Amino acid sequence: MKKDLLQKYLYENIPISKAMGIEIEEASLEKVVLSTSFAPNINHKKTVFGGSLHAAAIFACWSLLYLNLDHSKEIVIVKSEISYKAPVLSDFKAICIKPEKMVWDRFIKTLRAKGKAKILLSAKIGEAVYFQGYFAALTHPGST
Amino acid sequence: MKKDLLQKYLYENIPISKAMGIEIEEASLEKVVLSTSFAPNINHKKTVFGGSLHAAAIFACWSLLYLNLDHSKEIVIVKSEISYKAPVLSDFKAICIKPEKMVWDRFIKTLRAKGKAKILLSAKIGEAVYFQGYFAALTHPGST
Repeated sequence: MKKDLLQKYLYENIPISKAMGIEIEEASLEKVVLSTSFAPNINHKKTVFGGSLHAAAIFACWSLLYLNLDHSKEIVIVKSEISYKAPVLSDFKAICIKPEKMVWDRFIKTLRAKGKAKILLSAKIGEAVYFQGYFAALTHPGST
Repeated sequence: MKKDLLQKYLYENIPISKAMGIEIEEASLEKVVLSTSFAPNINHKKTVFGGSLHAAAIFACWSLLYLNLDHSKEIVIVKSEISYKAPVLSDFKAICIKPEKMVWDRFIKTLRAKGKAKILLSAKIGEAVYFQGYFAALTHPGST
């Protein structure tokens, strides 16, 4: 059910996720797996466009934070790096796994204390694409 | 005319460019300016999704290389970094300017000598987004 709600939220609020054919395959507090269709994301070489790979990685990381944080938090991407090691030639999965407990606990502690905190999340697409991005979480002004 | 051909090429070969509403505003050997529609790229905060900003930056840089190199070359993105300094709240332009002559000439010289070469290109979206990516150009096997 969690994954259906997340899918609906993405399609309704970030429409490019629908254009890309992103589907939530797994959505837990520990791990997010997104499946993405090949056809809408192809390029002139009949491989997946690098921009789509980056977008899928962001969606995976953003979803993990969205599932873990309550809705009084705003999630913003601050910066990211991506390495394209090999072409992607088919439908693909972007996977984000929750960081280790010490890193996560520090993030949550800072977020509670200061109303904002930053965390480095990673996503990968098979062995072809490695993504790392800093995401900031902010408590909305006025929320408790 | 150059920009109409480039636009057609992108829409036909990399369909997500059409879904994003990318339009070629300027396409010379020195500079590429892409206009992108706000609506298809919005997120839940009614700002532009970070993945779309990254994709627009790639399209600008890729287009500059595509216009400068002959069609016997394959262009591949190797890795990139992007900094999101401020939210983008409207239609936006991604701009890529050709690197300085010394850098460009070295790239072309290496490409001719070895059949492959790598170049760092930058794109920006106003003062909100700064992108840098390494792109590799390869001479297709069998081409002269």
